[in-house]
Amino acid sequence: MSAAATPFGAFLDDLRPGLERDLDRLLPAAGAPPARLHAAMRYSVQAGGKRLRPALVVLAGERFGAPRDLLRAPAAAVELIHTYSLIHDDLPALDDDDLRRGRPTLHRAFDEATAILAGDALLTLGLTLIAREPSAVPGERRSAAVALLGEAIGTGGMIGGQMEDLAAEAAWPEAPEAALDRIHRGKTGALIVACLRLGGLYAGASADEDGRLAAFGERLGLLFQIGDDLLDVEGEVGRLGKTPGKDALAAKLTYPGLYGTAASHARLAALAAEARALAEALPGDAKLLHSLVDLLSERTS
Amino acid sequence: MSAAATPFGAFLDDLRPGLERDLDRLLPAAGAPPARLHAAMRYSVQAGGKRLRPALVVLAGERFGAPRDLLRAPAAAVELIHTYSLIHDDLPALDDDDLRRGRPTLHRAFDEATAILAGDALLTLGLTLIAREPSAVPGERRSAAVALLGEAIGTGGMIGGQMEDLAAEAAWPEAPEAALDRIHRGKTGALIVACLRLGGLYAGASADEDGRLAAFGERLGLLFQIGDDLLDVEGEVGRLGKTPGKDALAAKLTYPGLYGTAASHARLAALAAEARALAEALPGDAKLLHSLVDLLSERTS
Repeated sequence: MSAAATPFGAFLDDLRPGLERDLDRLLPAAGAPPARLHAAMRYSVQAGGKRLRPALVVLAGERFGAPRDLLRAPAAAVELIHTYSLIHDDLPALDDDDLRRGRPTLHRAFDEATAILAGDALLTLGLTLIAREPSAVPGERRSAAVALLGEAIGTGGMIGGQMEDLAAEAAWPEAPEAALDRIHRGKTGALIVACLRLGGLYAGASADEDGRLAAFGERLGLLFQIGDDLLDVEGEVGRLGKTPGKDALAAKLTYPGLYGTAASHARLAALAAEARALAEALPGDAKLLHSLVDLLSERTS
Repeated sequence: MSAAATPFGAFLDDLRPGLERDLDRLLPAAGAPPARLHAAMRYSVQAGGKRLRPALVVLAGERFGAPRDLLRAPAAAVELIHTYSLIHDDLPALDDDDLRRGRPTLHRAFDEATAILAGDALLTLGLTLIAREPSAVPGERRSAAVALLGEAIGTGGMIGGQMEDLAAEAAWPEAPEAALDRIHRGKTGALIVACLRLGGLYAGASADEDGRLAAFGERLGLLFQIGDDLLDVEGEVGRLGKTPGKDALAAKLTYPGLYGTAASHARLAALAAEARALAEALPGDAKLLHSLVDLLSERTS
């Protein structure tokens, strides 16, 4: 079944054209100097990502009553920031990846210096954007949004998770279970949780509602990351004649690596069940949220 | 004459202990995981910089009546962001520097991946900090501060200047005079202007006052950068038996390289005179500002 045939797939399809227009408007003009930097930013942002994170912002915001127009800036901002994190993670000194979304990674298509600076520029643009737009939202809320997002992607969140992931590769941690949990929650989970909470913030969600969005988001983040770990193992096994998964080669600390694939599938099922139960505590029709949970539980790419 | 004996030197000495305490409080705890990342951030921030940029925030803010307490967060933020820019500029793919402030650069003392992530983390922390603190300042003003600073360090400012600097090294630009001007204004000038304007913003300066701070700051930025270019040429000539300046070796586009050292000195003198005249249009005793101009015109390191 194609994603578009599901409620969440249809939601993504409805959202995407407006988001792409916003990203195009927000990115610096391709021809203006420094043109190479601007071209690099566009190469990575406009590479055809699924746009899952902006969709989470809009989904959560609309659930709690925010008009879509107020959610456009934070939706674009999280995609800019997600792209920055991919660019820097792919660098030779980090994961050293040559391909991303079927195309050469930014440092391969351009060069390493440009990739570092383009990542810096997308991070800066993402945080600056939500400080500035939309002007119809009070500055108090915009500065709270910068703080919420900034903390999620900082040393206690995304950057911290990436650092621990690299450290675990270099030397097996003393308490691998706790380290893996911090890596998963930081690397992927923190930004996913922040996307949902940002939507809630723009809708004026209460502290209780914010907590329910965060709990739902935590399960989504873990579903996403354990699913990713499993894909690296099983996605490759399914294609005869290919090298084994890159994670195993790199001695990465992963869920299937630590607990086995059977336990990983069981954990995925448990997380999906928890996420579905938590979806019931969020306002609006639960079908869209269930479809999102299904997408993350059953994804094959 | 030591800097401390001048009015601006005394101002820096008075400011520094509080700023160092703030930076220590704001940086993630050295022992907490990921400890290596936190240690790296501290290694670079606490390397004994002159703290010129925080001083500009406080100087401008106090001139227009802001109490120092309100200026502590933006002062610390600009130093965190300045440090991020040095860490990334020093990377092998960019300027490939081994030494900074007499110690190994961060990627030499730690490793490249840690340096990239520590830079990312300092940029994130700097922007997040001014979104969050001080709570006594209305959110409207905090989000305006994030936007002001974010634009100064983005593609139209600091990152853009660094990118054009690298591009000019790889291929001599068609219009080197215009490129050099953009490099100087972007690479160093934009953040220096933003520091002064941030101080004004926290003090509630008017648009006219903001313009006067920006005009003064532009001259300071150019003084700083042309002085830096000259130091690379003349600082080395003064020490017999040493290799020529790194800029010339790297075929960097510099002011003395394009116009010669005599023109560079004349330009420095003109900029200093302009800055002194612009200082008269700012409130308070001009002596402190003149002393700052002197420091930037006559610096030897």
